[in-house]
Amino acid sequence: MSLLHYNFRSQLLGYYVNVTIALPTKEISILRPGDADPRIHPSNLGKDHYAPGMKFQTLYLIHGGGDEDTLTYRFTNIERYAEEKKLMVVTPGIPNSFGADALYGVNYFSFLTEELPIIVQSLFPSSPKREDNFVAGYAMGGNVALAMGMIRPDLYQTCVDMSGGIGMTLNTDAMVEELAGDHFRTRFPRFNATFGKPEDFPGSRFDLYPIAKKHVEDGDPLTDLYIVCGDKEFIRARVENDVKKLQEIGHPVTYVKAEGYDHDFRTWDHFLEVAVNEWLPLKNRVIYPE
Amino acid sequence: MSLLHYNFRSQLLGYYVNVTIALPTKEISILRPGDADPRIHPSNLGKDHYAPGMKFQTLYLIHGGGDEDTLTYRFTNIERYAEEKKLMVVTPGIPNSFGADALYGVNYFSFLTEELPIIVQSLFPSSPKREDNFVAGYAMGGNVALAMGMIRPDLYQTCVDMSGGIGMTLNTDAMVEELAGDHFRTRFPRFNATFGKPEDFPGSRFDLYPIAKKHVEDGDPLTDLYIVCGDKEFIRARVENDVKKLQEIGHPVTYVKAEGYDHDFRTWDHFLEVAVNEWLPLKNRVIYPE
Amino acid sequence: MSLLHYNFRSQLLGYYVNVTIALPTKEISILRPGDADPRIHPSNLGKDHYAPGMKFQTLYLIHGGGDEDTLTYRFTNIERYAEEKKLMVVTPGIPNSFGADALYGVNYFSFLTEELPIIVQSLFPSSPKREDNFVAGYAMGGNVALAMGMIRPDLYQTCVDMSGGIGMTLNTDAMVEELAGDHFRTRFPRFNATFGKPEDFPGSRFDLYPIAKKHVEDGDPLTDLYIVCGDKEFIRARVENDVKKLQEIGHPVTYVKAEGYDHDFRTWDHFLEVAVNEWLPLKNRVIYPE
Amino acid sequence: MSLLHYNFRSQLLGYYVNVTIALPTKEISILRPGDADPRIHPSNLGKDHYAPGMKFQTLYLIHGGGDEDTLTYRFTNIERYAEEKKLMVVTPGIPNSFGADALYGVNYFSFLTEELPIIVQSLFPSSPKREDNFVAGYAMGGNVALAMGMIRPDLYQTCVDMSGGIGMTLNTDAMVEELAGDHFRTRFPRFNATFGKPEDFPGSRFDLYPIAKKHVEDGDPLTDLYIVCGDKEFIRARVENDVKKLQEIGHPVTYVKAEGYDHDFRTWDHFLEVAVNEWLPLKNRVIYPE
Repeated sequence: MSLLHYNFRSQLLGYYVNVTIALPTKEISILRPGDADPRIHPSNLGKDHYAPGMKFQTLYLIHGGGDEDTLTYRFTNIERYAEEKKLMVVTPGIPNSFGADALYGVNYFSFLTEELPIIVQSLFPSSPKREDNFVAGYAMGGNVALAMGMIRPDLYQTCVDMSGGIGMTLNTDAMVEELAGDHFRTRFPRFNATFGKPEDFPGSRFDLYPIAKKHVEDGDPLTDLYIVCGDKEFIRARVENDVKKLQEIGHPVTYVKAEGYDHDFRTWDHFLEVAVNEWLPLKNRVIYPE
Repeated sequence: MSLLHYNFRSQLLGYYVNVTIALPTKEISILRPGDADPRIHPSNLGKDHYAPGMKFQTLYLIHGGGDEDTLTYRFTNIERYAEEKKLMVVTPGIPNSFGADALYGVNYFSFLTEELPIIVQSLFPSSPKREDNFVAGYAMGGNVALAMGMIRPDLYQTCVDMSGGIGMTLNTDAMVEELAGDHFRTRFPRFNATFGKPEDFPGSRFDLYPIAKKHVEDGDPLTDLYIVCGDKEFIRARVENDVKKLQEIGHPVTYVKAEGYDHDFRTWDHFLEVAVNEWLPLKNRVIYPE
Repeated sequence: MSLLHYNFRSQLLGYYVNVTIALPTKEISILRPGDADPRIHPSNLGKDHYAPGMKFQTLYLIHGGGDEDTLTYRFTNIERYAEEKKLMVVTPGIPNSFGADALYGVNYFSFLTEELPIIVQSLFPSSPKREDNFVAGYAMGGNVALAMGMIRPDLYQTCVDMSGGIGMTLNTDAMVEELAGDHFRTRFPRFNATFGKPEDFPGSRFDLYPIAKKHVEDGDPLTDLYIVCGDKEFIRARVENDVKKLQEIGHPVTYVKAEGYDHDFRTWDHFLEVAVNEWLPLKNRVIYPE
Repeated sequence: MSLLHYNFRSQLLGYYVNVTIALPTKEISILRPGDADPRIHPSNLGKDHYAPGMKFQTLYLIHGGGDEDTLTYRFTNIERYAEEKKLMVVTPGIPNSFGADALYGVNYFSFLTEELPIIVQSLFPSSPKREDNFVAGYAMGGNVALAMGMIRPDLYQTCVDMSGGIGMTLNTDAMVEELAGDHFRTRFPRFNATFGKPEDFPGSRFDLYPIAKKHVEDGDPLTDLYIVCGDKEFIRARVENDVKKLQEIGHPVTYVKAEGYDHDFRTWDHFLEVAVNEWLPLKNRVIYPE
């Protein structure tokens, strides 16, 4: 597996950001199938070869609050799981941003869904087709993934929300209550600075319920949605409310209550492996130009 | 010169941050002076040797708005200049934060002046003495450096503010006007989100004039201050107002109007070299435990 | 957990090398025990605090052949395991070097055992005491760890050799045979370039058997040794010969034949967790200056 | 300017290597020319836009002996120079390898000229056309660049050899003498391990003179060659002999004796700027698919 650290200036954010990208190159050879070369150990030859225009299916993997783009690769083994499936993984650094176009003036949602894909598909070997693009996240990143899937189902075939209990949700009332309460105001003031006054929240660009509802009602293609939460997680009720709201509006969702799992990297490492092996519709191959 | 990328979770910010540190190890040997070793080329031996407890004088170097911690090392040659003088350089990544304890809830000034020095002096070979600590910055980082020197003169022997034209200033009226105007509100909303309402600004924690004035009046030890601005820079009037205000309150300052220089890295690369070679009171040696 | 990438010029190797270091800082606070600060979430406060002179117990973790210093952190979860135990981890990049002072002129063994510890203990918070220093490795790195423990038992309290089947060994005859044969000459010529002619091998600086035997006979303090091999590994016979030879000379060794494990990162991730949790004599605390 | 660190396993070398790549993205927009977006500052809009299939002209920039791939970007300002000209820069880490297919069994020349271009052109936006590919190097990297240009003129339009005084040369006799002498054998044994016995050198794959001569005689397209040496450099005689030998065989070469320059980064920083601004046939634009 190859790892790529990319540092560039985002136009929509107005500053340099870091993105960590894993490329599944282990089985890809500089030789064409059938060719041999005494300098290359036969075990290094595979069925795939390097070629300009080659593309990979791509998973946007969103880190948790307080984390950043390299940590996901250090605290899980996602590189190893993705390698086996010829899946490219893209993790942008979005520290404590909630992945939102925040009211204090940073446009993380636009960055994630408008700028990042254009750049990744223009500079790196990422397939632009919807069927080849997926999003997953854990903790705060679970909510970011959820928002990306609900607001932009045209972009992502599949969404995996693991342990998402803070930030954008289908449960409008919960957010209104959180914005009105003292907890975040005292402990995490950026929450209120991002999402604004409780009375302005319903129907705002952050309110997933009416947005998802409309996509369902309009018959838009919907993102396949998996939601995971450990049975020991302190945010389980909030996660399960997201599931209920989705069912209420008729949005398909697969919910996994993970017995014995808590809000930690043991959970996220395990369900990343499950997602890659079972949930994402992976082609297990390089996509070559026709 | 050695380069160190450090990624850690800041307690005061609540998320992982990146810090890039340059260590002037080129002339430092694993051998003691006088020792020889056939495996080591004589040109690799120097007057200094590695020893637990060794320390370097340390320059905190603050990047500009829109930049980040690695960029300063890529776009200037500061590593080369610092190497010659046995100076350690520390650049934290503080993207578009103005280095302020922002009203939307991120404490960058506390991070810079309270958390970062403790960590750098506990984990890395940085001298804790005031006489060994300096701060410099360019563009937005110039104002951050200025604020660090004005608010915490007990921490920094010397401050170099290059081309600082946005953010904390000695000129209270300018900030009030900027906060009241449309320019930042439209183009850079985080400015207002950071510093708040114009009417609340005077006397706030961001208002350097009364803070610096009090340090002068109280007879506190003051940070030696150098301010640089290219004569072609669009923010020159604002910089020169800082100089005037400092003179008004009797705070010593050396102002350099750089003929032929503009608001770009050619300026900052050049004056970093000047600062290291002429302005900072450098000892040109490793500081060993007594 | 904090991650540090250090890039410096090795005197003994003559070129810049990369070292990746993990520091267990998650539970360490900038506040002293008992202090409180409204800006810091109580969950971020621990029993330990930053202080100049603080030290960690240190594991030198040696990557496999073909790998490098960052890969170990990406393909295992060692950061998470070490964090829990307040253990610092140091992984130097030593690509395909066998960790040997190779006959073609690169001194990796000297680098690993003479230069790296001095630098790590001078610039970073690593305890210099033997009781606080350990070495582990996997695949080619298992043999490097084994060599470090056998040749320099004065430096390492404990050694963990996982799946080490290529490079320095206790089995002199095996190396002589490998050096005389065609396999490495054709497939991996650096093997022969490193270790030389088969007839010169016995008694050379690479031949661990007489070196370990002498340490045993001289009554030197010996490094506690753990050897692990999966029962499915293709190099198991070679590993078990190392165990036999150690028993032959009376060197204590704990051998674990891991049922169901093969020569891959699933094995190494698992046994790194076991080593950290069960085998290394860890103090589970920061070591402060007295 | 964007910076990309790529870590991958080379098939021809058999281990993970680092490559640092700079991409000239500063003036490239996610918007098409003429489009506007209130979220994007007008100064961030340029004439170029991101698009799949876009390509850049590419400079392979080879670091010096003892250096590595990030150092070139830290000790020079090449990113800034390349940005202005829409030039992509690729620096592989090839520590003390002489860029040669060394006799001790590492194939750096094959890696540089066969594997690296395929990978760079398959995964990143690098134009594959000869007219868009250049190579430059300094110190040991100067000789590597020279060898790449002399042996593979079909790949590189232009070659810039700065201060190249060690390794592959047009002066067969000099290499034979160096290989026979004591200096390298004692001080830098990898030199002999790489290039072999003096008597085997003439006509070997390392001997540039007959190779270049044949390309001239065969009327092959030749790489445009610039050779630079400071008048104070200790290796100037060796460099000027390369120039003489090239003139002898009728290979066009532009030689610049740089008055006042020595064997250091001041020289290489300056002449990288000259090369980018004056010597390389740059198009100053993104190359889009037709």
